[in-house]
Amino acid sequence: MTERITGFDVTDVRFPTSLDLSGSDAMNPDPDYSAAYVVVHTDGGQEGHGFAFTIGRGTEVEVAGIRAVERLVVGLDIDEVFGDLGGFSQHLVGDSPLRWLGPEKGVIHMAIGAVVNAVWDMYAKREGKPLWKALADMSPQQLVDLVDFRYLTDALEPAEALDMLQRAREGAAGREQQLMADGFPAYSTSAGWLGYSDDKVARLCKEAVEAGFDHLKLKVGGNIEDDIRRCELVRALVGDDIRLSIDANQKWGVDEAIESVARLAHANLWWVEEPTSPDDVLGHGQIARAIAPIKVAAGEHVANRVMFKQLLASGAIDICQIDATRVAGVNENVAILLLAAKFGVPVCPHAGGVGLCEVVQHLAMFDFVALSGSTENRWIEYVDHLHEHFVDPVRIDNGRYIAPQRPGSSARMRPDSIDAYRYPDGRVWQLGHASS
Amino acid sequence: MTERITGFDVTDVRFPTSLDLSGSDAMNPDPDYSAAYVVVHTDGGQEGHGFAFTIGRGTEVEVAGIRAVERLVVGLDIDEVFGDLGGFSQHLVGDSPLRWLGPEKGVIHMAIGAVVNAVWDMYAKREGKPLWKALADMSPQQLVDLVDFRYLTDALEPAEALDMLQRAREGAAGREQQLMADGFPAYSTSAGWLGYSDDKVARLCKEAVEAGFDHLKLKVGGNIEDDIRRCELVRALVGDDIRLSIDANQKWGVDEAIESVARLAHANLWWVEEPTSPDDVLGHGQIARAIAPIKVAAGEHVANRVMFKQLLASGAIDICQIDATRVAGVNENVAILLLAAKFGVPVCPHAGGVGLCEVVQHLAMFDFVALSGSTENRWIEYVDHLHEHFVDPVRIDNGRYIAPQRPGSSARMRPDSIDAYRYPDGRVWQLGHASS
Repeated sequence: MTERITGFDVTDVRFPTSLDLSGSDAMNPDPDYSAAYVVVHTDGGQEGHGFAFTIGRGTEVEVAGIRAVERLVVGLDIDEVFGDLGGFSQHLVGDSPLRWLGPEKGVIHMAIGAVVNAVWDMYAKREGKPLWKALADMSPQQLVDLVDFRYLTDALEPAEALDMLQRAREGAAGREQQLMADGFPAYSTSAGWLGYSDDKVARLCKEAVEAGFDHLKLKVGGNIEDDIRRCELVRALVGDDIRLSIDANQKWGVDEAIESVARLAHANLWWVEEPTSPDDVLGHGQIARAIAPIKVAAGEHVANRVMFKQLLASGAIDICQIDATRVAGVNENVAILLLAAKFGVPVCPHAGGVGLCEVVQHLAMFDFVALSGSTENRWIEYVDHLHEHFVDPVRIDNGRYIAPQRPGSSARMRPDSIDAYRYPDGRVWQLGHASS
Repeated sequence: MTERITGFDVTDVRFPTSLDLSGSDAMNPDPDYSAAYVVVHTDGGQEGHGFAFTIGRGTEVEVAGIRAVERLVVGLDIDEVFGDLGGFSQHLVGDSPLRWLGPEKGVIHMAIGAVVNAVWDMYAKREGKPLWKALADMSPQQLVDLVDFRYLTDALEPAEALDMLQRAREGAAGREQQLMADGFPAYSTSAGWLGYSDDKVARLCKEAVEAGFDHLKLKVGGNIEDDIRRCELVRALVGDDIRLSIDANQKWGVDEAIESVARLAHANLWWVEEPTSPDDVLGHGQIARAIAPIKVAAGEHVANRVMFKQLLASGAIDICQIDATRVAGVNENVAILLLAAKFGVPVCPHAGGVGLCEVVQHLAMFDFVALSGSTENRWIEYVDHLHEHFVDPVRIDNGRYIAPQRPGSSARMRPDSIDAYRYPDGRVWQLGHASS
């Protein structure tokens, strides 16, 4: 009997993180970490969970975006979808009226990402595997078939992608064992939010190093004197063996970024993240050339595979920071991983937010096992909040992500958390000690 | 007494254009030209009209986007807004939670554009001038103050923008008289929709030339043999004195674009529009170098001033096609006009759709009078449908736009049209001879 997708539950879930300034940076002074959360249902009782990460106001627009995608999905035969996940993704991304509202960027693209990821969650559950393993167990041809190569072939042809994936079969079993034994390296952003005092930053950095992290990141882009003082403070505190990166969250123009990094460079920085607009391919290239050997990192707000293609092919970024919910889901992220591998750029996923660590770890682990084959100079971002709201939260041990074992993508939020934080009618918002 | 913005009326308006395939192209086979339409009200009885242009499904998401912007605007003192239109625009574009949903692209950015344009409509009405003249009458410093130079200063500093605008004062009065007497050149897209038969294209091209148009555009990007046949047919029909451009609507990859244009070049083409993804700055540059002297045109889907900066500064486009409702309204379009002037690239606005001709003509006319100072190799796109739904429709005479005289931005839709085409409850949709 044919099993069909029947519809979505879509929920606006907001956490009042602005109350303690966790998550604060130069462009986002008081975010309420939020999600437009979707559950995809079939008439056979399967469920897939996905979401778009947002930061408060406007989450209801993302909810409307997911509702607009629902009409394209209801009634589809789930086995046909699972049999052609590339075609499914292109069916959504290519829908002409919805594409007009991007194209392939912003609210609609993120909504498609949430839905595509939810269907991948369902697929991995049916396979009885965590998402990273479900992906790693696909054949090279199946993986190539996931990708929409429109606009990419000047940088990467399907045949070359296939060849890369086939070559990566060698040693994959060993890397899978290594991943299960040792996990995947993490870096910590928990210590360095812009709204924190020097004392709090110092204490948290010390704790992070004691907990086994070998790479920390500080927010910058407010007052440059403050940035200098903090970078010096943390470098003096942790010594030279710990990698230290900074994140300007798009605050600077191109020239300002180059000048600012020059004033911070003596703190021995590993990367500078989002030095300017994520749309500025040529600007990132100028910055990268000016500040080398300090690396340029970007990706959490890079809209799609076409932007990543340019950033990677032109050497404008040295670190590729994929995000689980900014682009059109697993499929587009596989395209981006292939481009990063082609141009030899390490993938260090953006995470934090709410649920981003949970989902994106699967993509980094797939990349290690089945594509890049390395964890050298690769870390998944780690932020220590809001994991308690997930059914299968990330586990960190000695500064490393432990590979998840439960089937699915780890995206499922706890039902009681959804009830409490649903906006505007959840208990937390009704009590009135938070506002969004 | 202080006059404040009280709220918005927001309406989902859809025209069933898919019924006759007007508007059909290689990426958009059956659009229903639509608008998320906003009226901004004050407690003093002033009204401003604006909209985001959409093509059917998903217009309700754009409506939700405008509603999300409303909260940032209600209660503002309208005289303070008029006194600092640059600050007003940045207040919206810079709102951190809404910006997260782009950033500065897609549904939210277009929603901000609709609201900013509505406030400009109100401003021009209060000045008692058509928008083009209200802009042209601003001082160079006032115009510079409209622009958010964040991310732009590596290409254009405020002082240089001021200098360009001051130099353009010379001869402005004469150009205004010339505009009032002769209008502004138009080119016609009405003849070349992809869904039309060869006979229909031939008949419409002939009629357009007889009506005074010296520049026609055909849609391409379907079957290349069809494209070749049509281009040859039209060139043979209209002779060598008429400019002929083509529009691929993003259908091609970079290499495919270069190969396709090579096969069409013998038809003596002026520009090829949207040869590939609007996000591909480097790809447009490759195409431009390969197909010269045929020009590359783009802009209707270029998300913001940062993308335009790169396309213009790197010589990736030869024609800058601003759109009235894709970016964050008049302010961001003034930034783009300044960048185009700086890099010497002619501005030929995208229009058509519904209401795009009405609004964008004002920007091209301002550019002529107060900035670029020229109409040479400049045309505003013209498409001959849906103008009857506007209170102050464009007027075309002998292939030229007649300068509008009524105060405002010409964005106001007729109330009876809104009633009839409101989705899903308007008469046209209730009658059921259309579906979206």
